[in-house]
Amino acid sequence: MTALPIFPSHHPRPAAGASGRISLVGAGPGARDLLTLRALARLEEADVIFYDRLVDPEILNLARKGAERVYVGKAVGASAWPQEQIDAVIVAAARRGRRVVRLKSGDPCMFGRATEELAAARAAGIEVEIVPGVTAASAAGAALGRSLTERGATDRVVFATGTCRAGDPSPDWGAMLMPGTTLALYMGVAKLAEIRANLLAAGVPATAEVEIVCNASSAQEHLWRGTLAGVTRAAQVVNPAIILVRRPKPGAVVSQGLTAQVASIGA
Amino acid sequence: MTALPIFPSHHPRPAAGASGRISLVGAGPGARDLLTLRALARLEEADVIFYDRLVDPEILNLARKGAERVYVGKAVGASAWPQEQIDAVIVAAARRGRRVVRLKSGDPCMFGRATEELAAARAAGIEVEIVPGVTAASAAGAALGRSLTERGATDRVVFATGTCRAGDPSPDWGAMLMPGTTLALYMGVAKLAEIRANLLAAGVPATAEVEIVCNASSAQEHLWRGTLAGVTRAAQVVNPAIILVRRPKPGAVVSQGLTAQVASIGA
Repeated sequence: MTALPIFPSHHPRPAAGASGRISLVGAGPGARDLLTLRALARLEEADVIFYDRLVDPEILNLARKGAERVYVGKAVGASAWPQEQIDAVIVAAARRGRRVVRLKSGDPCMFGRATEELAAARAAGIEVEIVPGVTAASAAGAALGRSLTERGATDRVVFATGTCRAGDPSPDWGAMLMPGTTLALYMGVAKLAEIRANLLAAGVPATAEVEIVCNASSAQEHLWRGTLAGVTRAAQVVNPAIILVRRPKPGAVVSQGLTAQVASIGA
Repeated sequence: MTALPIFPSHHPRPAAGASGRISLVGAGPGARDLLTLRALARLEEADVIFYDRLVDPEILNLARKGAERVYVGKAVGASAWPQEQIDAVIVAAARRGRRVVRLKSGDPCMFGRATEELAAARAAGIEVEIVPGVTAASAAGAALGRSLTERGATDRVVFATGTCRAGDPSPDWGAMLMPGTTLALYMGVAKLAEIRANLLAAGVPATAEVEIVCNASSAQEHLWRGTLAGVTRAAQVVNPAIILVRRPKPGAVVSQGLTAQVASIGA
């Protein structure tokens, strides 16, 4: 992976040297060719890569051969690596003058815990940047062959989480799903029954279309479609997944989704 | 640009041959190195590329030398190329057996009018795919050095438009900006005064932070920050732009944004 051309960027890459730096890099949704050229460049010049549970090994293989690879994954609900520890190790590595890549699935700015790592780097006086990536919901739309927005029917998208900080109440998903909206829920599979009940109670029609994309863009990608009233959690439906619920404006209809490779879910 | 390694994809690239095919390709937010490897591969094998106004010439330069390049740009509010005409020409090119790339800024599934082009291709029996891209709001967050979500403070993001279909009423942006939300408005600069009034009327605090990122990730990138009450449209603030408004949960605070390269806007 050393023969790639150089892609000069309007954001010049941080200079290597006596003082290290940290790049929070979006690895994209899964498939390695959905990595950006800038992310690839950072991997090719990294001294050390701290990577998440959801980053595909194929993407790690694109990194510089001599780069150290450190797994700092957190399972949902578990906390093998507390965030504070991740903050500390990336800063410590940069302080030793190393080019640090903090590799996160999807886009670092969407549910990526970037805030804590940015703050830690800045508090330590370490140069830090964000390399944006393709977020999982975009890959879910692509997999389903459908736009997330449809002019005149759904002209906004809400990106929300199924999981919350421990102790926080569940988000009021129904309040977000006003007519004219597509709701894209990240990591919500475990709460599917609660989400369904909340949306129905908020007046979302029982016939609203629900789609679930597991492992969008990866070799393990699976697609399901059903109605809000009928949706149930099948055994194969697991995180990482995007749950899409479409609620068009009154009188408007959304396009027909692809049916190839899309399984039915629920009653 | 012919020496790039092959990146096998879990979504095998459509075979070229007697029947053409259409790829709706996300060009990303602007910088050419924010293109994905898959998008680059499609450009390198294209016979013809139909591209939008917001696609940077540097990205077009990555395409196969022999590829025909056709500008089908629409200025906001104008309609030099009606959507129906674009649908017709991409289908006609694919029917002649050509590998067609429909190159769209950002991600095709976000405000990209993909629905019409997908439907036209399928109605004609043409193979069609979506190649997801980095959306402008992700690049805006990266430029500002801030996440779009902050755990415990803003745990959802709404992507909405400033412009609507002609004749439609303006969206009720204020209803979307519940506490705990970041609102990312695409192409809203012309309606900034209306957006400000709508949000204030909906009870969004006058002190809510507003950030505007014009031409995110490109050489023409400009960043502004102000408060909702004070925000006014400066002459240099032009589309394409992302307007970000943050409304944390009650009692929560969002992180401090970077100040380098961020100009103040408004009173």
